[in-house]
Amino acid sequence: MRVSRCFLPVLKESPADAQIVSHKLMLRAGLVRQTAAGIYAWLPIGFRVLKKIEQIVREEQDRAGAQEMLMPTIQSADLWKESGRYDAYGPEMLRIKDRHDREMLYGPTNEEMLTAIVRDDLKSYRDLPRNLYHIQWKFRDEVRPRFGVMRGREFLMKDAYSFDLDEEGARLSYYRQLLAYLRTFQRMGIQAVPMKADSGPIGGDLSHEFIVLAPTGESEVFYDAAFEAIDWNQKHLDYTDEAGLHGLFAQVSATYAATDETHDEARWAELPEERRRTGRGIEVGHIFYFGDKYSAAMGLKVSGQDGNMVTPMMGSYGIGVSRLVGAIIEASHDDAGIVWPEEVAPWQVGLVTMRADDATSVDVAEDLYARLTAAGVETLYDDRDERGGVKLGSMDLIGLPWQVIIGPRGLAHGVVELKNRRTGEKIEISPDAVVGRLTS
Amino acid sequence: MRVSRCFLPVLKESPADAQIVSHKLMLRAGLVRQTAAGIYAWLPIGFRVLKKIEQIVREEQDRAGAQEMLMPTIQSADLWKESGRYDAYGPEMLRIKDRHDREMLYGPTNEEMLTAIVRDDLKSYRDLPRNLYHIQWKFRDEVRPRFGVMRGREFLMKDAYSFDLDEEGARLSYYRQLLAYLRTFQRMGIQAVPMKADSGPIGGDLSHEFIVLAPTGESEVFYDAAFEAIDWNQKHLDYTDEAGLHGLFAQVSATYAATDETHDEARWAELPEERRRTGRGIEVGHIFYFGDKYSAAMGLKVSGQDGNMVTPMMGSYGIGVSRLVGAIIEASHDDAGIVWPEEVAPWQVGLVTMRADDATSVDVAEDLYARLTAAGVETLYDDRDERGGVKLGSMDLIGLPWQVIIGPRGLAHGVVELKNRRTGEKIEISPDAVVGRLTS
Repeated sequence: MRVSRCFLPVLKESPADAQIVSHKLMLRAGLVRQTAAGIYAWLPIGFRVLKKIEQIVREEQDRAGAQEMLMPTIQSADLWKESGRYDAYGPEMLRIKDRHDREMLYGPTNEEMLTAIVRDDLKSYRDLPRNLYHIQWKFRDEVRPRFGVMRGREFLMKDAYSFDLDEEGARLSYYRQLLAYLRTFQRMGIQAVPMKADSGPIGGDLSHEFIVLAPTGESEVFYDAAFEAIDWNQKHLDYTDEAGLHGLFAQVSATYAATDETHDEARWAELPEERRRTGRGIEVGHIFYFGDKYSAAMGLKVSGQDGNMVTPMMGSYGIGVSRLVGAIIEASHDDAGIVWPEEVAPWQVGLVTMRADDATSVDVAEDLYARLTAAGVETLYDDRDERGGVKLGSMDLIGLPWQVIIGPRGLAHGVVELKNRRTGEKIEISPDAVVGRLTS
Repeated sequence: MRVSRCFLPVLKESPADAQIVSHKLMLRAGLVRQTAAGIYAWLPIGFRVLKKIEQIVREEQDRAGAQEMLMPTIQSADLWKESGRYDAYGPEMLRIKDRHDREMLYGPTNEEMLTAIVRDDLKSYRDLPRNLYHIQWKFRDEVRPRFGVMRGREFLMKDAYSFDLDEEGARLSYYRQLLAYLRTFQRMGIQAVPMKADSGPIGGDLSHEFIVLAPTGESEVFYDAAFEAIDWNQKHLDYTDEAGLHGLFAQVSATYAATDETHDEARWAELPEERRRTGRGIEVGHIFYFGDKYSAAMGLKVSGQDGNMVTPMMGSYGIGVSRLVGAIIEASHDDAGIVWPEEVAPWQVGLVTMRADDATSVDVAEDLYARLTAAGVETLYDDRDERGGVKLGSMDLIGLPWQVIIGPRGLAHGVVELKNRRTGEKIEISPDAVVGRLTS
């Protein structure tokens, strides 16, 4: 993509109303613009990051055996009256009356709707287990939206819902999602730790929050550094291996991790000092097992193997997709701007000419842009007639993993600069070697 | 995908409340379920089709130089008061009050919002032209929603917005979108004809509707069959070639096409009888040039080359993404069910065993499923313990382009059946030849 043809508005100043670093950087680097309190438009660069995160979530959900669908944003209040949550939900639910004065609402979650959808179509034990998910915008009318997309009102969430014949099956579905989450967050380059949690208004007795460390987190967290040593994407754990899933859950449960609500000083004290990690945490995912809470209330039944009707056991599993954009920036930035992990970077490489009036530089840049693009390397090419220093500042702010910097001085010696955004390390390299280096 | 692990509820009976064939087939084949009047959930198979259509739209928008972003669904009423449309829009606008009693609405379109977003960030003639689009859910509170997703209330739309320095530039932006639309619809396997239209409440003096013929269409249309002979995806028209774009527009304008509102009996009579196509039409896209209507009302200005401030000229360009699922079915079905064009089919191949209790059939099917999947052929494998006739009926209903039918009688002679869903033609072929045949 050429910057000259791109809507990529970069701000020099930090907007006064942004309190936390991710919110400031998302505004400055042109990822989002606020359109109403707690509601954001995603500009092209922010949209690209959002889509990359969404795609990682999707791939790991599919791999874990969940199936994608899409439910609407506007729901009938009747569904929520069936489950009893319509009154319980409070003022965070955006309540709407349509032109016929029917009570509607903007969905904050979808337990009721999906249970209602499947109750006509799941008929027998042979139709189970099923896990259905969607990635859709939700609305929670926060009284005081703040911190940009971290606590917005309209937000993108992945929510999955599992249906099993019995508790044993439902626990396996829960463990599959737990594993999928561990893989998902690590693929995004962040350390999210599962912590035993209260189920809150959703109900049920088995629940984990996934927490990322960040100074601006909403709660204090404590965990065993042993978590950080595990590469969940290297483990070849099979989602159909029941014993393996039980083993995984035992391992997660045995490794200490707690929020201030569930913290246990005695167990914490037993941990060797060097393994104790503590700090503020941001919730990026939350999973729940809640048994027959919704299936019983809403009359979902299937015929069992013996012919008797059975009420399926359910769980639900959320990931804050839009919130993750902020959380990743909180966890990965420096004084110059964002430092994107490769897997979620909007482009992999930023290509910069230091002197837009130097014909040789422009020729080399155009040639490299064509070759990088042809090699499938996502490249943002700053082809504007702008000072080199301004372009470099923008590239650091935007935070692509690699920069290729082209100037007359280097070219006189047959080299360009290749800079690693995270380490700041720069090497000189011949233009012909750039593509090979970035694709190896 | 294995049917046994898939949420793919197929109905034997046509639902009584569905009036048109696409609505009936979408319910029967398990593409959607209604969750409230005019509001639908997309089940896995419908979701796959929706995503394929969305992806074709995206690729052709990107190719035409538009850039993707994403605006929120909930808008502030203030934006619409600025443009003067808040009162004009009427009861189809879903109006909402949030917990602080602020007036909000569910966006039916985004001219105001995007103009407001870019007015702080587009500063100079060098920042133009720009064309920004998003694919997002919209809401129009239809008084009588019907015909399934064809006239729903919550619907998915691609809407693009162009900003140019002057009318000449804006017309070129319009022509680029016109060409992108011609390519987009043909790639989906449907014939959509651009017809000169009134601009309606959006305003402006240059507008085309894109209309697909279908018996249930909402208006009568007339067009020259010469349109059907043009393959827009084979034409190597360059989006940067201004003369070529003017030529394209002249060609489109010279070829007769009109709705009953704009029909000209005199011009129609001049057409040779065999080139006259007439029927009912469904609108699947609508493009508008409206000059400075919104930019002037909302104070969008950039500095021109001479230093004076200039009000950019705008157009907007919509495609009914969710409506297209219905429109394609209206245009492509038979008595047995849906007949998907390959480009939008949820899977390319349906694999069926006639006898689930025949071990050899199952072995051959499992082997073929593995090989098709490895070759990248999207395959739906009906591995259920169900009668062969039932499975074949479901496959016809779902309408995948190809069926591979495996039974003991054929295998005794070393063959399986390969059926073309559209023509009904069946050939016998050795299992080993299937993958090659379907990937050639």
